Amino acid sequence: MLEAAREVARALGEDAVSYDAEVLEHHGHSDWSTSNSAGRAVAVVYPRTTADVCAVARICHGRRVPMVPFGAGSSVEGNFSQPHSGICLDFAHMDRILAFHPDDMDVVVQPGVSWVDLNARIAHAGLFAPLDPSPTATIGGMVSTNCSGTNAMRYGTMKDWVLNLTVVLADGTVIKTRRRPRKTSAGYNLTALFVGAEGTLGIVTEATLKLAPIPQDTSVAVVAFPSIRAAAAAAASLTRSGIQLAALELMDEIQMKLLNDQGSATVRKRKWAEQPTLFLKFSGTTDAIKSDVARAEAMVKPFSGGAGTGGEFVFARTKQDEHDLWAARKEALFTMVSTRPAGTEIWSTDVAVPVSRLTEMIEVSKRECGELGIFASVIGHVGDGNFHVAMLYDPRNRAQRQAVARCVHNMMDRALAMEGTVSGEHAIGIGKKEALVDELGLETIGLMRRLKRTVDPRWVMNPGKVFDDVPGGGN
Amino acid sequence: MLEAAREVARALGEDAVSYDAEVLEHHGHSDWSTSNSAGRAVAVVYPRTTADVCAVARICHGRRVPMVPFGAGSSVEGNFSQPHSGICLDFAHMDRILAFHPDDMDVVVQPGVSWVDLNARIAHAGLFAPLDPSPTATIGGMVSTNCSGTNAMRYGTMKDWVLNLTVVLADGTVIKTRRRPRKTSAGYNLTALFVGAEGTLGIVTEATLKLAPIPQDTSVAVVAFPSIRAAAAAAASLTRSGIQLAALELMDEIQMKLLNDQGSATVRKRKWAEQPTLFLKFSGTTDAIKSDVARAEAMVKPFSGGAGTGGEFVFARTKQDEHDLWAARKEALFTMVSTRPAGTEIWSTDVAVPVSRLTEMIEVSKRECGELGIFASVIGHVGDGNFHVAMLYDPRNRAQRQAVARCVHNMMDRALAMEGTVSGEHAIGIGKKEALVDELGLETIGLMRRLKRTVDPRWVMNPGKVFDDVPGGGN
Repeated sequence: MLEAAREVARALGEDAVSYDAEVLEHHGHSDWSTSNSAGRAVAVVYPRTTADVCAVARICHGRRVPMVPFGAGSSVEGNFSQPHSGICLDFAHMDRILAFHPDDMDVVVQPGVSWVDLNARIAHAGLFAPLDPSPTATIGGMVSTNCSGTNAMRYGTMKDWVLNLTVVLADGTVIKTRRRPRKTSAGYNLTALFVGAEGTLGIVTEATLKLAPIPQDTSVAVVAFPSIRAAAAAAASLTRSGIQLAALELMDEIQMKLLNDQGSATVRKRKWAEQPTLFLKFSGTTDAIKSDVARAEAMVKPFSGGAGTGGEFVFARTKQDEHDLWAARKEALFTMVSTRPAGTEIWSTDVAVPVSRLTEMIEVSKRECGELGIFASVIGHVGDGNFHVAMLYDPRNRAQRQAVARCVHNMMDRALAMEGTVSGEHAIGIGKKEALVDELGLETIGLMRRLKRTVDPRWVMNPGKVFDDVPGGGN
Repeated sequence: MLEAAREVARALGEDAVSYDAEVLEHHGHSDWSTSNSAGRAVAVVYPRTTADVCAVARICHGRRVPMVPFGAGSSVEGNFSQPHSGICLDFAHMDRILAFHPDDMDVVVQPGVSWVDLNARIAHAGLFAPLDPSPTATIGGMVSTNCSGTNAMRYGTMKDWVLNLTVVLADGTVIKTRRRPRKTSAGYNLTALFVGAEGTLGIVTEATLKLAPIPQDTSVAVVAFPSIRAAAAAAASLTRSGIQLAALELMDEIQMKLLNDQGSATVRKRKWAEQPTLFLKFSGTTDAIKSDVARAEAMVKPFSGGAGTGGEFVFARTKQDEHDLWAARKEALFTMVSTRPAGTEIWSTDVAVPVSRLTEMIEVSKRECGELGIFASVIGHVGDGNFHVAMLYDPRNRAQRQAVARCVHNMMDRALAMEGTVSGEHAIGIGKKEALVDELGLETIGLMRRLKRTVDPRWVMNPGKVFDDVPGGGN
């Protein structure tokens, strides 16, 4: 493997390769996640072009050395970990916008582009890339995990916004999945096959993204509920109503308390009701929002309880207000990670279920996690039937770690019993491989494995993720 | 092959198999299309269950006999033709709604279900499947061609509405691509791989479709323009504006004249301006529509010309009015097919280009087709950069046929030069295989071919469609 790294250094230049122990550690471990492996890459390579990635692939393929792509390192299922070592490709220098076509409402970018940065740079044209995962995330990782975020309720997931991909295959072959029409039914949808494949089928070196017009206006409202059941039921009603919400987010009473106690100065300007709370975002024309807000308020009222339950609809009155309200939702995970007690780790997981099962799912999971006696809290993209549980635990306390693991596994089993999925938006990585087999069964995984083997016969593209190789070439 | 059919008859019962010459002809030829082949199946099989389809697959796979799925027969690129003969599977008896989950906003259906029928049967719950291809179309064909229709501007294409598929693979293995969450990032997106694969990778026997809430209100407006250029330019402006149109359709002056001359009684109630015309559909809350309509009218005005150009915005004042206006658009193709001169055939084709190129694309293509001196007309889903050209020609007139073919090929070449696609919504079938190579290149087609070979090593699933096998197993 080191020989491969040296060959890469000869091909791309010495300064494109790092063997530094701290760099390797940073690329091999996540503080945000429990899905880590002990393996580390032998080197981190920083390609600048598609041709650089081809050169790396040819070398690694020739020597049967694993290639592991790395974006921002913000994924949480160990998607970029290196259980089989190999060479890690960091796209920090492939961070250019290659072409912006405002009249076609699309943009061609390299994988290292940050979505926050992209949106800042194209806002002048009235357009934006509508998915909003972690603010640190880069396009390559967003494509590879089929990310979503709070805007997914209205805008769908990453797969819905990728027009084409340039992909380097295991042996260094470069393909482009499509041209640049917004709509097509020409040939197999290879774009969709690579989106969400976590770099196990090829390495994305360019992506053409559809863009959406920035809505004329937006508005935010926040409403507290007497119970998580009431909040989830209200959310289900809203989802079914056809009111065009831009986002519909749930935070439980534990998260709300955290805002009061540990939130940023912006968030602590307000005293939050420490109850399960829905955050609603509206977007569209000013008139449309006005009527949507009125309908939503009427719909939610029966669930939000009477006096003393905090059940009033709090609206943003100004743009600053709107920003501040939404900041409370967006800061949640950061606040949790940055204020966690020394020595604790965070186990963050997400599942998604059919919308009608969401109330029961959240209620049962929350009760079970709550019984552990540790910090355990629910945040949900409830408009999609998708929610996260985050738990802080002491990794040195074996019994506690096992109890948390059991909670996560029970939650996944429960999601499957409801015809849901073990991963709504974080993908599989190394953390949920077994659960994926439970979800899809051996025949379906067998087909995925045969496809993988066809594209990557030496199994060198991000090995050990999604599913494992089966010796002897079986299903 | 006949032996295979007899074995199928023994397995499924004699009345599940037809050898009738008229039946074979009906399943092997389309009056709507020029992409026909001389081959015919040896038998048409009518399965009733997934198990029936498995039995057929096992028999055909064992005997290396082609299997060609047939839905409504309304596709236009020869997608269901049988150039290599084999057994045709007609899903007429697999037309049941298996489960309707209104609270989850999804429905599980067999492939023979008609989308029109489905929507009639679920309307009571305030939900609908939003894609609207030919009114005859069935779900299996809609999935297999990744269909769209006029609603695609707002709702996307078929791939965006399929939650999971049950698929019978070549050897009779049954897989289910996913469970039933609305959102997932668990494993490869096999659903998207089968959507649009035209039955070349497997046979869809069940589909779970996402449903959308029926909008509170809709409205329709029609506006005529002095030139096709002005109409297309107005369409591009509207698309870019962020006004949430449900549909944005263009009909040229030839189509508009046809409405006056040959339209149904409903359509001929009105005297249409025989000019290039945009049909706009609005949907949402009543208030939102009011503001969208006002914005759209202001935006279109500069393009629609002054006095005498017919450039006023005609709004539906009543629901009946709205129905009548939209009927004019929906009837277009039928009117053309049903009133065509005896002996003529119709060549209907579609391409899609990035939105900014649409004006030029339509203008040049229309001019070129117009020069042939035959009936040639443009209908466009212009909100997606997608449009159709339909030409009526005399197939016995060889020079005319060649001229039409040249027109179609020039149009596809032009679309590719603009980074567009040779097929926006009709898929590839037998009609556009060569053009697909031009569009995607040999490396990308090679990857598709390798995937096909992995899933269908004997090349028995709808052979001769999308691309051809390469002897020796090469790319």
